[in-house]
Amino acid sequence: MASKSFYAIISGVGSGTGQSPIYACISAQLELSRSAAIRFAKAYPVVLLARKPESYNSIVDEIREAGGQAFGLTADATDEAAVNAAFETIKKVLPGSKLAAAVYNVNGGFARKPFLELKREELDASLDAAPKGFFTFAQKALPLLLESVPESPHPPSLIITGATASIKGSALFGSFAAGKFALRALGQSLAREFGPKGVHVSHAIIDGGIDTPWGKDFVANNGVEDGKISPDALVKIAETYWHLHTQHRSAFTQEVDIRPYVERF
Amino acid sequence: MASKSFYAIISGVGSGTGQSPIYACISAQLELSRSAAIRFAKAYPVVLLARKPESYNSIVDEIREAGGQAFGLTADATDEAAVNAAFETIKKVLPGSKLAAAVYNVNGGFARKPFLELKREELDASLDAAPKGFFTFAQKALPLLLESVPESPHPPSLIITGATASIKGSALFGSFAAGKFALRALGQSLAREFGPKGVHVSHAIIDGGIDTPWGKDFVANNGVEDGKISPDALVKIAETYWHLHTQHRSAFTQEVDIRPYVERF
Amino acid sequence: MASKSFYAIISGVGSGTGQSPIYACISAQLELSRSAAIRFAKAYPVVLLARKPESYNSIVDEIREAGGQAFGLTADATDEAAVNAAFETIKKVLPGSKLAAAVYNVNGGFARKPFLELKREELDASLDAAPKGFFTFAQKALPLLLESVPESPHPPSLIITGATASIKGSALFGSFAAGKFALRALGQSLAREFGPKGVHVSHAIIDGGIDTPWGKDFVANNGVEDGKISPDALVKIAETYWHLHTQHRSAFTQEVDIRPYVERF
Amino acid sequence: MASKSFYAIISGVGSGTGQSPIYACISAQLELSRSAAIRFAKAYPVVLLARKPESYNSIVDEIREAGGQAFGLTADATDEAAVNAAFETIKKVLPGSKLAAAVYNVNGGFARKPFLELKREELDASLDAAPKGFFTFAQKALPLLLESVPESPHPPSLIITGATASIKGSALFGSFAAGKFALRALGQSLAREFGPKGVHVSHAIIDGGIDTPWGKDFVANNGVEDGKISPDALVKIAETYWHLHTQHRSAFTQEVDIRPYVERF
Repeated sequence: MASKSFYAIISGVGSGTGQSPIYACISAQLELSRSAAIRFAKAYPVVLLARKPESYNSIVDEIREAGGQAFGLTADATDEAAVNAAFETIKKVLPGSKLAAAVYNVNGGFARKPFLELKREELDASLDAAPKGFFTFAQKALPLLLESVPESPHPPSLIITGATASIKGSALFGSFAAGKFALRALGQSLAREFGPKGVHVSHAIIDGGIDTPWGKDFVANNGVEDGKISPDALVKIAETYWHLHTQHRSAFTQEVDIRPYVERF
Repeated sequence: MASKSFYAIISGVGSGTGQSPIYACISAQLELSRSAAIRFAKAYPVVLLARKPESYNSIVDEIREAGGQAFGLTADATDEAAVNAAFETIKKVLPGSKLAAAVYNVNGGFARKPFLELKREELDASLDAAPKGFFTFAQKALPLLLESVPESPHPPSLIITGATASIKGSALFGSFAAGKFALRALGQSLAREFGPKGVHVSHAIIDGGIDTPWGKDFVANNGVEDGKISPDALVKIAETYWHLHTQHRSAFTQEVDIRPYVERF
Repeated sequence: MASKSFYAIISGVGSGTGQSPIYACISAQLELSRSAAIRFAKAYPVVLLARKPESYNSIVDEIREAGGQAFGLTADATDEAAVNAAFETIKKVLPGSKLAAAVYNVNGGFARKPFLELKREELDASLDAAPKGFFTFAQKALPLLLESVPESPHPPSLIITGATASIKGSALFGSFAAGKFALRALGQSLAREFGPKGVHVSHAIIDGGIDTPWGKDFVANNGVEDGKISPDALVKIAETYWHLHTQHRSAFTQEVDIRPYVERF
Repeated sequence: MASKSFYAIISGVGSGTGQSPIYACISAQLELSRSAAIRFAKAYPVVLLARKPESYNSIVDEIREAGGQAFGLTADATDEAAVNAAFETIKKVLPGSKLAAAVYNVNGGFARKPFLELKREELDASLDAAPKGFFTFAQKALPLLLESVPESPHPPSLIITGATASIKGSALFGSFAAGKFALRALGQSLAREFGPKGVHVSHAIIDGGIDTPWGKDFVANNGVEDGKISPDALVKIAETYWHLHTQHRSAFTQEVDIRPYVERF
């Protein structure tokens, strides 16, 4: 039974498509938002933030059909005013409800190319989606999470999605790694500042997808039983997000890596 | 309801006492074995390995009183023959039962002293308890875990307890860190070798206790509600061990840090 | 004897003043630019990039008095057009000369404050100075360094100055760490892309100054002989920069930490 | 001109041969001892420690022919008594001379094989050569290095050779990595304890050779000019060892990676 007085918010819902490993990775991360939404919706009403309604509509429907509560809000994570407006809207949509968990799962700036061919705008896109977008999101979410500390069923949580590029700057992925490294830095700093206040900030490194053919491997090996793709594979990552949220404050995890068992690392 | 056909084994049960932070840390790790045993006993019969019966007797009683199954076996983790004998005994105690999870939670060699005062035996004690003891344990456990892959309710798991000293060689803790670093190396190597075969090898870094007053802080801040020590604090770490065991093979974690929310890091 | 046909460029010269450790750190980094300039000027004409002429004038004079060649150019590292113009000017000032070494030693965004009091502009300042400013600098410098590969007396080098905040996101230093993490990501990526082409990209982590009283310690302990500050202390860091530049391509270092012997780490 | 009153000692001289990458790696590390000996012999008399005279005889001759001083001593680094005896012999061979630099470059336990085929003796061999042998060496060398602090021309130095396996436990290399991780732990701890006393402890990660075809690449790509192997390639690594030794105490490096420019990492 979902608690009506607390809700979760997931930023970064969208539809990713494409053939190359790197697009498969984006797609995987978007699917992760869907999985996280479904998992958290078992306990809380879930607010989905995405740039376009078509990105969240089907998830909202899926959650509602399963008996949960979900709301989609349209906001570009890199647009400060839009994010602020979204948080204002939440107050009206879920009056009196408090924030239990916030997931930042936004990507951008995946230019895979030689450095000398990179445009400054491509670096900007990565920094906008990662540290800057997260900064705006966290400045809205953290005061709400702090308010929830005394009564939240689990320690109020801010969960960030990282990637291999969060800890390794591979050749040709400099701009993407710059954003992901910066995002991890912010996550560490917030964990150290807000942990002692009771808010759990954690960072999940979803391994693969950058310089290994994650996307392809994932489809080919992990979500597969008898040659058919299991739709449940990504849901499993969301279980770890839920576990992070439900960790007791005596046992907070700051960083966790998650990868398919076949992934080389 | 516990599955009768799979069991868990936890090595490193014992009674730690002492006043200094470092002894508090040992004590905490021993308490972790107790907590892990109780948690895994909700699902499986649990075998406890310890040097002395008085180290496991009370835990065995506690689990049995709660309706679970538990068996204590006496074996020094650094004694290869004793460990081998213990695994032989398990076949008789739990005939036909398969290994679902093995937890290595053994410590040794905590000499906190200037390097030039260290005895070679103190380094040996750390290496015996950490890489060598684990080597023996893993060589017995892994073939059993591999056998369990097709039918185990969750991916067969080998979970290693690390510490801050697994990733940082602090002044005066060289011998302890040497053992813990080496243990982590083996864990990484096994994760890479056995993950693709379906066995989940993970390493948990329990932060604190080495160069920070973990023990004291833990008692003073984390297990405390209204000035009284909550006996449930350490149980929370065991929840993450259980989560590691229950991760789907699409989403294995190799390394996780766990610390109280008040811990400085 | 300085080679007239190759030059070095150092970006980030300036005058830092202040009392707090963090300002002492900035000041130290600016002094590092001075030291690096003096060290590289023993071998090459040196171009100094700074926002204001008063930041480089005294260094230019010092180098010239010692018989070296130095040129100051005014350009804000975060201003793409100004940086591009500076590189155009170099062609006129040093016609026919080739780039042997480029040092990026720019800082910005040192706001030490609770996250909820941080302004978005403070994060922007850190990202502008670190990954963005470096991006512009590297896009101008790398084509020149590549050209120098066949004839340069030492492998053409791009050296980046990092800090403790490059690898640890401390509480209250999120915005600064975000920039420094991102800068390190770019450095790693470029090392992997341009190393095999013969350009040596390396990253030096000057430890201290962020969450430890580096500035004070440095003055109090390291640059001191008999209670007087030795002006030569920072010069020693520059020796390691020079060593990085002179490493043979059979033995490139990507990352190095440098700290005073009294620094706790 | 070599200082007669200070000497250097290099442990781990020997002749490695073989075809596979891993043997090529051992061979490279042994060659590194030779290169380090030759480099340090430009400044100091050098003592070479090896298991067999044939391992050091040619190096001793080479140094003497170049006008330097060198002495070979036979001692197995894993044999405590033999190492102690060697240090006693040094007092007679170089009476009144003080220790300026000690290099630990010993390897052992390179078993590349599936974990379940590993023998306990193979793990022991790795731990004997790495943490245990180093422990004995460091306990003899550090008191001598401490004595040299006031007068040594450069900060007395203890330099440890690591490998990729010092920071990554690759599949099939568990036993080797266990030793190398443990060695790194000791190095970190000693750096933190002895740095403030003026002794410089540093750890060099020679990248390659474990799970990449370092040996082959090295021969094929790095030591090659116009298809011929340059005998000087490994000497370049020794230059960085010498630089570590000559760093001022205001600018100590604890860890450095060194790899050929063509190495993938």
